[in-house]
Amino acid sequence: MSTTTEQLCAFLAGLKYDDLPAPVVHAARRGVLDWIGCALAGSTHPALEPLLLVLNEVSGKPVATVLGRNLKLGPLDAATANGYMGHVLDYDDTHLGGTILHASSPVLSALLPLCEQRTVTGKQLLLAFVCGFEAGVRSGQASPGHHKGGWHLTGTLGTLAAGIAAAKMLDVNARQMTHAMGIAATQAAGLQQNRGTMCKYLHAGKAAANGLMAGLLAQRNFDSALDVMEGPRGFCRIYSDTAAPAALVADLGTRWEILHNGYKAYACAAVLHPVIDAMIALRPRLPFDTSAVRRIELFVNPNVMTISGVENPLSGMQAKFSVYHTAAAALLHGAGGIAEYTDACATDARVIGLRTKVVITIDDSLRKDQARVGVDIDGTVQHASVEHAKGTADNPMNDAEVRAKFMSNSAPVIGTERARQLDALIWRIDALDDVREFIALCA
Amino acid sequence: MSTTTEQLCAFLAGLKYDDLPAPVVHAARRGVLDWIGCALAGSTHPALEPLLLVLNEVSGKPVATVLGRNLKLGPLDAATANGYMGHVLDYDDTHLGGTILHASSPVLSALLPLCEQRTVTGKQLLLAFVCGFEAGVRSGQASPGHHKGGWHLTGTLGTLAAGIAAAKMLDVNARQMTHAMGIAATQAAGLQQNRGTMCKYLHAGKAAANGLMAGLLAQRNFDSALDVMEGPRGFCRIYSDTAAPAALVADLGTRWEILHNGYKAYACAAVLHPVIDAMIALRPRLPFDTSAVRRIELFVNPNVMTISGVENPLSGMQAKFSVYHTAAAALLHGAGGIAEYTDACATDARVIGLRTKVVITIDDSLRKDQARVGVDIDGTVQHASVEHAKGTADNPMNDAEVRAKFMSNSAPVIGTERARQLDALIWRIDALDDVREFIALCA
Repeated sequence: MSTTTEQLCAFLAGLKYDDLPAPVVHAARRGVLDWIGCALAGSTHPALEPLLLVLNEVSGKPVATVLGRNLKLGPLDAATANGYMGHVLDYDDTHLGGTILHASSPVLSALLPLCEQRTVTGKQLLLAFVCGFEAGVRSGQASPGHHKGGWHLTGTLGTLAAGIAAAKMLDVNARQMTHAMGIAATQAAGLQQNRGTMCKYLHAGKAAANGLMAGLLAQRNFDSALDVMEGPRGFCRIYSDTAAPAALVADLGTRWEILHNGYKAYACAAVLHPVIDAMIALRPRLPFDTSAVRRIELFVNPNVMTISGVENPLSGMQAKFSVYHTAAAALLHGAGGIAEYTDACATDARVIGLRTKVVITIDDSLRKDQARVGVDIDGTVQHASVEHAKGTADNPMNDAEVRAKFMSNSAPVIGTERARQLDALIWRIDALDDVREFIALCA
Repeated sequence: MSTTTEQLCAFLAGLKYDDLPAPVVHAARRGVLDWIGCALAGSTHPALEPLLLVLNEVSGKPVATVLGRNLKLGPLDAATANGYMGHVLDYDDTHLGGTILHASSPVLSALLPLCEQRTVTGKQLLLAFVCGFEAGVRSGQASPGHHKGGWHLTGTLGTLAAGIAAAKMLDVNARQMTHAMGIAATQAAGLQQNRGTMCKYLHAGKAAANGLMAGLLAQRNFDSALDVMEGPRGFCRIYSDTAAPAALVADLGTRWEILHNGYKAYACAAVLHPVIDAMIALRPRLPFDTSAVRRIELFVNPNVMTISGVENPLSGMQAKFSVYHTAAAALLHGAGGIAEYTDACATDARVIGLRTKVVITIDDSLRKDQARVGVDIDGTVQHASVEHAKGTADNPMNDAEVRAKFMSNSAPVIGTERARQLDALIWRIDALDDVREFIALCA
């Protein structure tokens, strides 16, 4: 009798591209486009420098492309670098259904190095991406107390997702897929305590590299427990106070989690997005001179404070986890883009002045994509409320919006012409016989 | 005001070789000798092959020695390989004081690659080893529910230990040492569910590589939280149901945990060692023909069953976690060495016959290094009891025994003459101006 872990892995090992419904394929294309844009934008981030110094020192075989740079590294090291840059702006995709997972940074970063050492078709890439995504999200749903427990899911679930994706691209059998999951699970890590530091982005990079390693080892018949998820000392019980392993296999083949992926409209913690939406909605009704603002009142989901309660951020990296900074900067600039999460913006006196006016009320009845705000201007309060933040599954970006975000992320790094080529290519990526053509455009 | 994590890290960053008491230096020399022997013996284990295939595929710069093989890899990859082979026989050192930690595999494997790329003295090597050991054990003591929670401590605490050791060898400052701990903690992983599979040994290898990465990153000012151990979402609370961060700094500089390290007399789970001692003690009183054995009754610490309760091991790797196999093989062969934990021994019909006679009684009053046994031969029961298993802190191997174990582990791999040279060299390793001389002998 097979374990639940084995049932999931047998399904994923057997899945064919033609089994994927058209909307799933379309969601995968959108995911690749959005993530490549985030990684290219992230490739110039100063926090990448210490990591690249070390990877250059330890890496040897320059076979795998580091996105947006004139650099190749060994496959595991390139996966680390790409996963890091894909996540470093906190601008990459977010799945909020029973998880808070940024799956594409680990998954796609694990897959790209594999595509450079063998001929991989666009269909194989999308299929492996979908498999990894599905495994990562379901692992989170099977471990309901996982996020609350203090784990950074992009590190932990990301490792599982990347491991399954890499193994799928290597076309392993069901037993090897189960081993890939076991090898990945046993490397899963990432502490929320490190939010606001470079470590948060390392989680995504190491998830990619460790997942890739899991896939490669599984292909060589490196073994693991066959019940690594549901076993008494397995992932679901160790990484969560409650275990729900049945979620690994519920509605397999009919429910596809990549359809519930969100693409961020703003470059900060996803739970802050409805606050930014509300500020942008309010702004036309407010005076130009923000010195008249007496009080900024926010009603938010509890996760806003546990994830992003930093009161006095000292850097752009900390500001992405500050609801105070976010409300202030959005009110001041009418935006929540890369520019609002730089060190300069975090230390701007006008933003610091406004953030002292922010008062938070936790409201358990509000979802993570929901917020209500009131801004008191000289005694008159203007209200706004947001049901579903822009870019979440229930208020998704349309394709034109995803493309606009991609262009704004990638054109400054690779130029407008090349960004346009890449955009065009990704929408027909499933027609490519060899995705190296696509990777070459990202270098 | 500095955090507890910072206090420990400031102490370790400031520690000098001359601060180490003579017994600590001696314990470190013994640790190096014993571990090198275990790694050399492990270097021929068949379970190393799939790992080396993958590491050869992904690695590039052949700068760091893989022990016992004619092979160099990149520094992180050599750390992975050496950590794996050091642990693969379950014969490496064990600390049992509030932990069950095999520290040397991750720590020394992280350090050796650093010694090959710069001039490192023997004193620097021993100092970094002691620092890593201390940090690893104290991190476990600060997280009292860690082992019970299902973690494999050689993976988790091993990453912390290796990270601190690597950072110490790189001579970082106190702030960077704190970052090294933060970067290491956020990579700590390893599930007990994978006991009996190759993953258990990968934990030690990845702990070494990830720790080395943490040290290298910290040196480049890659940052982390400053309270990664005691913070609300930090290591002590996330990896344990109770947190005792004060243990990180209690008696710093007066209590040295490496003095409580044990060197295994047998090649299996440490909690099984008193059972083997008891069987060896009983054996002269038993008839040569074991078919007369009716019943083998064992009274043991509860950890024996949680760690090594496998009833029907199918491989040598599983047999190391089978109290049934261990009692049977020790009774039959009067030993618990490498030969008793091969696939051949695990599937030997005589051993299988004897292990069905084993009856276990859990006794909470027995320590992990204690056991009582009774063997019923045709109705007459012979008893033996062991207070402290051979090789534990309270019944340590003397230097001659550690040397004998080293010779028996290393001579079959590198030859008797070279093993003797290595033995002589390690006892005066603190006199070496450049430890590359020592590493060259291990290749």
